[in-house]
Amino acid sequence: MALIVQKFGGSSVGSIERIENVARKVIATQQAGHEVVVVVSAMKGETDRLTDLAHAAAQSNSPRPRELDLLLSTGETVTIALLTMVLERLGAGARCYTGAQVNILTDSAFSKARIQDIDAEVIRDDLSSGRIVVVAGFQGVDENGSITTLGRGGSDTTAVALAAALGADECQIYTDVDGVYTTDPRVVPTARRLDRITFEEMLELASLGSKVLQIRAVEFAGKYQVPLRVLSSFEDGPGTLITMEGDAMQQGSMEEPLIAGIAFSRDESKVTILGVPDTPGIAAQILGPVASANIEVDMIVQNISNDGLTDFTFTVHKRDYDRTLEILKDRAQTLGAREVFGDSDIVKLSLVGVGMRSHAGVASRMFDTLAAEGINIQMISTSEIKISVVIAEKYLELGTRALHKAFDLDEASGKTVAVEGENT
Amino acid sequence: MALIVQKFGGSSVGSIERIENVARKVIATQQAGHEVVVVVSAMKGETDRLTDLAHAAAQSNSPRPRELDLLLSTGETVTIALLTMVLERLGAGARCYTGAQVNILTDSAFSKARIQDIDAEVIRDDLSSGRIVVVAGFQGVDENGSITTLGRGGSDTTAVALAAALGADECQIYTDVDGVYTTDPRVVPTARRLDRITFEEMLELASLGSKVLQIRAVEFAGKYQVPLRVLSSFEDGPGTLITMEGDAMQQGSMEEPLIAGIAFSRDESKVTILGVPDTPGIAAQILGPVASANIEVDMIVQNISNDGLTDFTFTVHKRDYDRTLEILKDRAQTLGAREVFGDSDIVKLSLVGVGMRSHAGVASRMFDTLAAEGINIQMISTSEIKISVVIAEKYLELGTRALHKAFDLDEASGKTVAVEGENT
Repeated sequence: MALIVQKFGGSSVGSIERIENVARKVIATQQAGHEVVVVVSAMKGETDRLTDLAHAAAQSNSPRPRELDLLLSTGETVTIALLTMVLERLGAGARCYTGAQVNILTDSAFSKARIQDIDAEVIRDDLSSGRIVVVAGFQGVDENGSITTLGRGGSDTTAVALAAALGADECQIYTDVDGVYTTDPRVVPTARRLDRITFEEMLELASLGSKVLQIRAVEFAGKYQVPLRVLSSFEDGPGTLITMEGDAMQQGSMEEPLIAGIAFSRDESKVTILGVPDTPGIAAQILGPVASANIEVDMIVQNISNDGLTDFTFTVHKRDYDRTLEILKDRAQTLGAREVFGDSDIVKLSLVGVGMRSHAGVASRMFDTLAAEGINIQMISTSEIKISVVIAEKYLELGTRALHKAFDLDEASGKTVAVEGENT
Repeated sequence: MALIVQKFGGSSVGSIERIENVARKVIATQQAGHEVVVVVSAMKGETDRLTDLAHAAAQSNSPRPRELDLLLSTGETVTIALLTMVLERLGAGARCYTGAQVNILTDSAFSKARIQDIDAEVIRDDLSSGRIVVVAGFQGVDENGSITTLGRGGSDTTAVALAAALGADECQIYTDVDGVYTTDPRVVPTARRLDRITFEEMLELASLGSKVLQIRAVEFAGKYQVPLRVLSSFEDGPGTLITMEGDAMQQGSMEEPLIAGIAFSRDESKVTILGVPDTPGIAAQILGPVASANIEVDMIVQNISNDGLTDFTFTVHKRDYDRTLEILKDRAQTLGAREVFGDSDIVKLSLVGVGMRSHAGVASRMFDTLAAEGINIQMISTSEIKISVVIAEKYLELGTRALHKAFDLDEASGKTVAVEGENT
């Protein structure tokens, strides 16, 4: 008998019929001999409806955060009550709780609160009485008793936090897709579902724009070593298990795969400032005003100094492009820089895989592959399990498909080709 | 400076525009120098929407009560958040609380919970900081932390309970109507709004079918001596103040009015059992099975014994008429009764007024008036401040209008006539 936490998102509970579908999955898990805790989001459309009401009431896009959180929290509360009614109708004993009722204690950062503690006692009592426990995702309560929310997608975090607090054997996140893919199948038709992926890889993929899981949920799961599984609400299947690196090695193929997947982001733009004095603290002088404007900087490249002058290039979100250019042009005068310019028609491609830690040659194969397609690399940034490059936006599909094939990620047929000709 | 609790019902907060109207009334009260606590219901239609969802989920008209209460409570939670946002936008400092957040402690009788205690401390703190406090009506929390509701119209009860806990100077109930009337103006066009009415009279009027106030709220207000005022959300005006008898005397007209109002109920039906042995305990033997079937009996008349046999007549709600007849026919055999029959084409008319305590002749004037219109009285029942008669349904309008005029309740013009010709 295992203890399993299952999380269902808004479209999985978007109607009474869909809630029934969820209830059947939950009951099947219980009948397979497991204890089940279910975390649900608001019914699809409900959060938007409530947000619209709030905007109308406040006549602003930023209604008061304490009241907004209280308002939005009602969405999940509705779902837990309905799911529990359906579970009972289908013959299962069930009990539901709001975040406050199981003391999901958070800080008071309304609309993006962080979970600090969970009192799992009441849930354990219900489970040992044979009940299915239904908990509202996305919401908590601060020490003053005010209702907080964890931000969009926060129900994933609730599920993982509950799994950690209960010492659950697995936390299952049900979504619209049937697992984590090697890359976006809309861009690469031969993309395939991964059976397993490590937390680190998933984190890199999530933060690079893969929308399957909320990044905080993955961090949380990694920190508390909660095995996480992504599966489809609408189809049966094993989904993708997100585990510790060792587990994946142990049960995966003999050889650790080199690359788990390819992520890309269309949200990038880059700005360059040329010919600034290469003195200590110059980076801070350039990036300080950008950070002060609450603009997040992603990749940063500084070229080698030449005649005491150096060049900086960094990327920011496309929405911040104009403002960043403005700030830098302002800054250029003070610093005596030669020129400031930018480009927003770029994308970032990233190879992610714990396997690259122990394999040389990933970077060079990546660069070779892109060169063979005539794709110029504009920036490069690497971390222990990731290599990112910036290329022109028009090459996104071409580059991703070429890399997907070169790194042996294509489905069965593609894989054969890779083994024959290209495996190092 | 007074402390005033104001309650606004579902149609008063049925849209953002209406919520703005409520906010302006509340702010005007504060600007007149008062402290204000506002209690609101769910937006009109919301409770029905949630109830429909629950019925669909449970596939039954009686979903599980704990979950149903949790579900329904979200309706008021939405309203308090929206009203607080609007108040803030209009420049007023405000803070909102769910029932659980101000510890409106109730028993665990879901869907009809009773308030046991309120922790008013947090509200007092807000008030002394100059804030308007907005509290969700209709909902509370039991000692296990489960959310409860007080039953339809329970927001009135919340308002009165808060007023009692805070020692408020007045509890104002805003409704669709501008006060309590001498009778239903749709039946008697000359019906007039009462400036004042006593709690006892209001209780009798409320329990007799006048839908202005929830009866429990009136009981509560009477018990804790909270002055209660019924007024219109949509028009200005003084409404009707519900007070202690002494207050009404002191500030009202020199002479206590004989009758405060006329109530009627179309929901009645009567059943008669003839020729049962007049032995001790016979009433219990007849009414016992009716009570066991959860049928509420209203008026009961037992005729004088004749040859050791007696007759019983009593009234029940029209919806229980068929079942009551069935039960009695069953019972008739055991008791050796001669006959069982009934009539569901009846209404109950009631005169209510604390004035009748000290005035003789109310009953006889009532009977004379009805007789003069050729209306036969089928049953009579009296209490200290009420006389009720059962008459044929077709005489409802005729009887009510005749009594309204005879007891000097008509508007100005009518009143003159009454003073001239009919006042005893």
